[in-house]
Amino acid sequence: MEDCIFCKIVNQELASYKVHESDKVLAFLDVLPMSSGHTIVAPKEHFSDVESLPNEILSEMAIIFKKIGKAMMDSLGVEGYSVLLDNKSAANQHVPHVHFHIVPRKEGDGFKRWMQSAYEEGEARKIAEQISSKIE
Amino acid sequence: MEDCIFCKIVNQELASYKVHESDKVLAFLDVLPMSSGHTIVAPKEHFSDVESLPNEILSEMAIIFKKIGKAMMDSLGVEGYSVLLDNKSAANQHVPHVHFHIVPRKEGDGFKRWMQSAYEEGEARKIAEQISSKIE
Repeated sequence: MEDCIFCKIVNQELASYKVHESDKVLAFLDVLPMSSGHTIVAPKEHFSDVESLPNEILSEMAIIFKKIGKAMMDSLGVEGYSVLLDNKSAANQHVPHVHFHIVPRKEGDGFKRWMQSAYEEGEARKIAEQISSKIE
Repeated sequence: MEDCIFCKIVNQELASYKVHESDKVLAFLDVLPMSSGHTIVAPKEHFSDVESLPNEILSEMAIIFKKIGKAMMDSLGVEGYSVLLDNKSAANQHVPHVHFHIVPRKEGDGFKRWMQSAYEEGEARKIAEQISSKIE
């Protein structure tokens, strides 16, 4: 897709540091990493979000992040990693070409989770039923 | 696995608010949500981390988070969602039973990403090659 920076990376109109690729998926370093080795896993074809992404490619992306995560632990001296995917601009998806972030993690790296809070009485049951009722 | 709270949820020794299930995967509300509707997607069988999880179940978990994310947008009045997976205790994986978090997101919800920084000259190429060389 024109003007999509990830499509430009796939088409080699923009340079990137490739980590891995398959027929349908490309993995490359994020140039502004959350930690050293932070890798983006994206489909080669343009799909803006998870909803438009075929299940087959989503599965392939997941299996590739598993391979890359293991390779990070085997090569970078890290003991774990986090996987992040922000879907839609409301979720701060900055590049509208669906992708996972794989972020190498170390004990005590200071990366915090978002705050958690409790449900009011009866609220959780209602919410679970609401979501569940819309699953196709 | 004994003493695993997610195994206890799967076995109904602990109560949960079920969102969805398949033969091999269970999705239920996180009782301390980052946002209302925050759902955990976990395999029914105990696998501690991504490395021990068969590809087939990882794929199924990904396809299920896609279904649930869509259902969240269709039912909760949210415009997006984030997917998080912390692998290993170094990554703050609190429950050693592999799982995705699906977190409903709204414009302006204030959930921030972790800080990003730039690579030194030549560093990115070296890191990409290090990871790449260990991919099996």
